[in-house]
Amino acid sequence: MAGNEDNTARVKKIIEDWVAAVRRRDINGILKHHASDIVMFDVPPPFQSLGLAEYQKTWELFFNCAGDPSAFSIQHVKVVAGDDVAFAVATMRCAGTKGSPGLLDFRLTVGLEKTKGEWTIVHEHHSVPAE
Amino acid sequence: MAGNEDNTARVKKIIEDWVAAVRRRDINGILKHHASDIVMFDVPPPFQSLGLAEYQKTWELFFNCAGDPSAFSIQHVKVVAGDDVAFAVATMRCAGTKGSPGLLDFRLTVGLEKTKGEWTIVHEHHSVPAE
Repeated sequence: MAGNEDNTARVKKIIEDWVAAVRRRDINGILKHHASDIVMFDVPPPFQSLGLAEYQKTWELFFNCAGDPSAFSIQHVKVVAGDDVAFAVATMRCAGTKGSPGLLDFRLTVGLEKTKGEWTIVHEHHSVPAE
Repeated sequence: MAGNEDNTARVKKIIEDWVAAVRRRDINGILKHHASDIVMFDVPPPFQSLGLAEYQKTWELFFNCAGDPSAFSIQHVKVVAGDDVAFAVATMRCAGTKGSPGLLDFRLTVGLEKTKGEWTIVHEHHSVPAE
């Protein structure tokens, strides 16, 4: 369906723009398409971050602790989009921390809803396998 | 919209039935609503498991390593459902491993697509925060 292809392309573009914003440390760009009540499950603690202010804090932690943000990149992504609900499943890469340098591969799931004609990110789940 | 309420209720029921199947160690019940090309990001390694056979292996590992499966439970779940795409965001609890007993809280995201009138789980992302 053409409609779903358009939605898939639009969601993919939003995620690519978000990655680009991370790479240039642009916090306004990172938050641009996010819901006020976003639920964030991040790689480091806390267990969850609720709402946009807590979500923003996870990026302050990331920029303080992780290495070069220009390493933040999509390795593979698949978008599943309907008319008003979508999700994306991705494998990602970023720079490690000072204590654990090198590159870090992580898993990412993003959940989105379309409201008033535009897609909004309402959920992100970032993780690495537990030791 | 009544249609979306029906979809939300149906997706929630599928997840509750999947939890119930885990609790009774019923592998056929666990796999009942899963796509052949499911992408699984689990708490322990590997980084990802692709397809139903690899997904099934993650449950064999779980039943071998984790404690009492009757501790497997939903703490909180929110379903976001459209007509043919849905996802669920949940906080979960299960028994820890023999090496790390007690209860383990983990995060869960589930992605679903409706095909031929029924919802299918195409993605699961289980994790705990990294140390």
